Amino acid sequence: MADAAAADVDTVTSVPVVIVGAGPAGLMLAHRLGRAGIEAIALDTRTRHEIETTQRAGILEAGVARDLVETGVSDRVLRDGHEHQGVELRFAGRPHRIDFQGLVGASTWLYPQTDVFIDLADARKRDGGTVHFGISGTEVLDITTAAPRVRYTAPDGTRHEIRARYVVGADGSRSMCRGLVPEDRRVRYTKEYPFAWFGILAEAPMSAPELIYAHSAHGFALISQRSTTVQRMYFQCDPQESVDAWSDERIWETLQARVAGEDGFRLEEGPIFEKTVLPFRSFVQQPMRWGSMVLAGDAAHTVPPTGARGLNLALHDVKVLAEVLIRTLGSEGDSALDDYQPRALQRVWRAQNFSYWITQLLHTAPGAEPFDLQRQLGELDNVVGTRAGRTYLAEQYTGWPTGTGD
Amino acid sequence: MADAAAADVDTVTSVPVVIVGAGPAGLMLAHRLGRAGIEAIALDTRTRHEIETTQRAGILEAGVARDLVETGVSDRVLRDGHEHQGVELRFAGRPHRIDFQGLVGASTWLYPQTDVFIDLADARKRDGGTVHFGISGTEVLDITTAAPRVRYTAPDGTRHEIRARYVVGADGSRSMCRGLVPEDRRVRYTKEYPFAWFGILAEAPMSAPELIYAHSAHGFALISQRSTTVQRMYFQCDPQESVDAWSDERIWETLQARVAGEDGFRLEEGPIFEKTVLPFRSFVQQPMRWGSMVLAGDAAHTVPPTGARGLNLALHDVKVLAEVLIRTLGSEGDSALDDYQPRALQRVWRAQNFSYWITQLLHTAPGAEPFDLQRQLGELDNVVGTRAGRTYLAEQYTGWPTGTGD
Repeated sequence: MADAAAADVDTVTSVPVVIVGAGPAGLMLAHRLGRAGIEAIALDTRTRHEIETTQRAGILEAGVARDLVETGVSDRVLRDGHEHQGVELRFAGRPHRIDFQGLVGASTWLYPQTDVFIDLADARKRDGGTVHFGISGTEVLDITTAAPRVRYTAPDGTRHEIRARYVVGADGSRSMCRGLVPEDRRVRYTKEYPFAWFGILAEAPMSAPELIYAHSAHGFALISQRSTTVQRMYFQCDPQESVDAWSDERIWETLQARVAGEDGFRLEEGPIFEKTVLPFRSFVQQPMRWGSMVLAGDAAHTVPPTGARGLNLALHDVKVLAEVLIRTLGSEGDSALDDYQPRALQRVWRAQNFSYWITQLLHTAPGAEPFDLQRQLGELDNVVGTRAGRTYLAEQYTGWPTGTGD
Repeated sequence: MADAAAADVDTVTSVPVVIVGAGPAGLMLAHRLGRAGIEAIALDTRTRHEIETTQRAGILEAGVARDLVETGVSDRVLRDGHEHQGVELRFAGRPHRIDFQGLVGASTWLYPQTDVFIDLADARKRDGGTVHFGISGTEVLDITTAAPRVRYTAPDGTRHEIRARYVVGADGSRSMCRGLVPEDRRVRYTKEYPFAWFGILAEAPMSAPELIYAHSAHGFALISQRSTTVQRMYFQCDPQESVDAWSDERIWETLQARVAGEDGFRLEEGPIFEKTVLPFRSFVQQPMRWGSMVLAGDAAHTVPPTGARGLNLALHDVKVLAEVLIRTLGSEGDSALDDYQPRALQRVWRAQNFSYWITQLLHTAPGAEPFDLQRQLGELDNVVGTRAGRTYLAEQYTGWPTGTGD
């Protein structure tokens, strides 16, 4: 706590970096900075309990899982996560495995985003990092100066100010921070999709050891896992769909139809205890830096969930950002921060394209012509039909080689 | 000439196969059947001179060039054609070479379709094959029986009938034959594109030794070659564009803007002596067999020119068809002909997808959002950025390995 110079707040604190948003991106950034001896305070309007109990799926790139272990966050991913050495594409009623290990020597890890958050929040606590959850009334001030401030109200009603050299907006897909870049100085790239995902959690045994991405004339379905007794599945639906219209029976019938094939494959069914409609879009806001504020993760860009890129991309942003901030706050000074956007953006647009591609490849657009369905099958044939096609998919799904776009 | 049983024709001839259409597909089929001792007569409404003087570009797969030589059509492709060991993708103002030889051990051959036709027509003449050019009044009769007939009027006004066991519709993108499959028994898959190509022939030196596919914010351009003194170039335009609105100066300005880059690349300019607007679409009609008639090449499917698949795909159709007809007319009988469609179609849909993909990747759709342009650049980055991406493109551009879809 520094001098309480401002009469209208209860405390004033000074740190090099204040992070708006304490999801995985914000906490991982604080963790990385902390390891370099740079103090960062993270703030979030949600309580820790709220974040911990929001079910979020998660497929981690091998490099991201390794970073969690090697930077000392936690090695729980290696114990509780599930290594997936490949993924299955089902189309025209037949399964085709994409063998990640055989093709690119990489695996992915099934490890829910919720668990990544828990590990990071625990690590912050263990390392003495400051995170304020459940705050309200956030104001980000003076970002076009070298002395930006963030004010907020604590859960007990007291009002606080944090003074920092830099503010990081890691406040997710409904980011308040990104709105602080003046309208006439920012570009927002968006792509809306005419479909959403109907997601369920069910008490059932695993239907398959790895993810199944199913293309069918009925639409897309994704078969995922949570544990040996709880399964996560999705199927393409109308963005206006209401969960109330869907009985367990109707859901299973829909899912079974989308994975049906000449191999007689059937999903293991069980009671469904969560149903959600998840709309999605593609979004990028540029610039990712505005004065003393930088944006990271979902605050700057969101992708359709199909390519499993969202969390990985956010953690890539903060990996680059931590490195650049360490240089900026060290000997190099403010101009070093300009390295952040170009390095982050190359991967952002690659990931945007991959997410778009996989989405278009597997979903049936309303009003799709018969040509489109046949062409998709031709494309799927091309992708699985040669080693290059399978590798092209595998290297994008498992994350680009280190050094690509970072 | 067989018995002139029909009073209303001047001659009646019987052969195993009659081919409607004497373009490259029809003539290559006649040539392949002729080598197996099966006589086939080919008919075309155009004169030989008309076909010979229609300028058609041509990029041959290595396998197609090899087939021309090895089946004894001609080895002229090896002397007058230009081997291209790669292709250049230009985007964001930078050149990126796709090294076909290094990636997939294959080249393509720049050899105009017009020359393929000349070689085939000469070979038919040399081998004593019958081809009737400049005919009119074509009627295809009794295709649902085992004794189909084709009637036509020769240039001298006489009327003729050819009786055959099978009729092949190889009559191009405005096929009359495909219309003979009853409307309620056929499916026509179509995809229209909101752009066309403005094509020119110019007297100028080569600007580059290989093809250049240019993506730019102004739209697509393709730089191709005809000879050391004549060049073929295209740029994306509105399908309703009129060639009269385009002076040489405006054309060169447009082309230069689309290939401009930080390397200072400039096209070699010269007098333009041909200007054409080429609309295109994706099209497939199924089934490819109806009774005693089969469809081959453009009669059954057309692709956008971007992927250089059209001629190669047509010649692949007739390679499969010749083999199947030889078996059918030999000991195996009519049911063997059913093998044709599934074997041809797998490659057709792969090529349809490749042509669609390359078209979408490089053209700017009217009304494209800024997102789309950035995503295209992300996709181009993905394609050229890794060996797998480059190989995925190269293997589709140079033709799938033998055995794929044939």
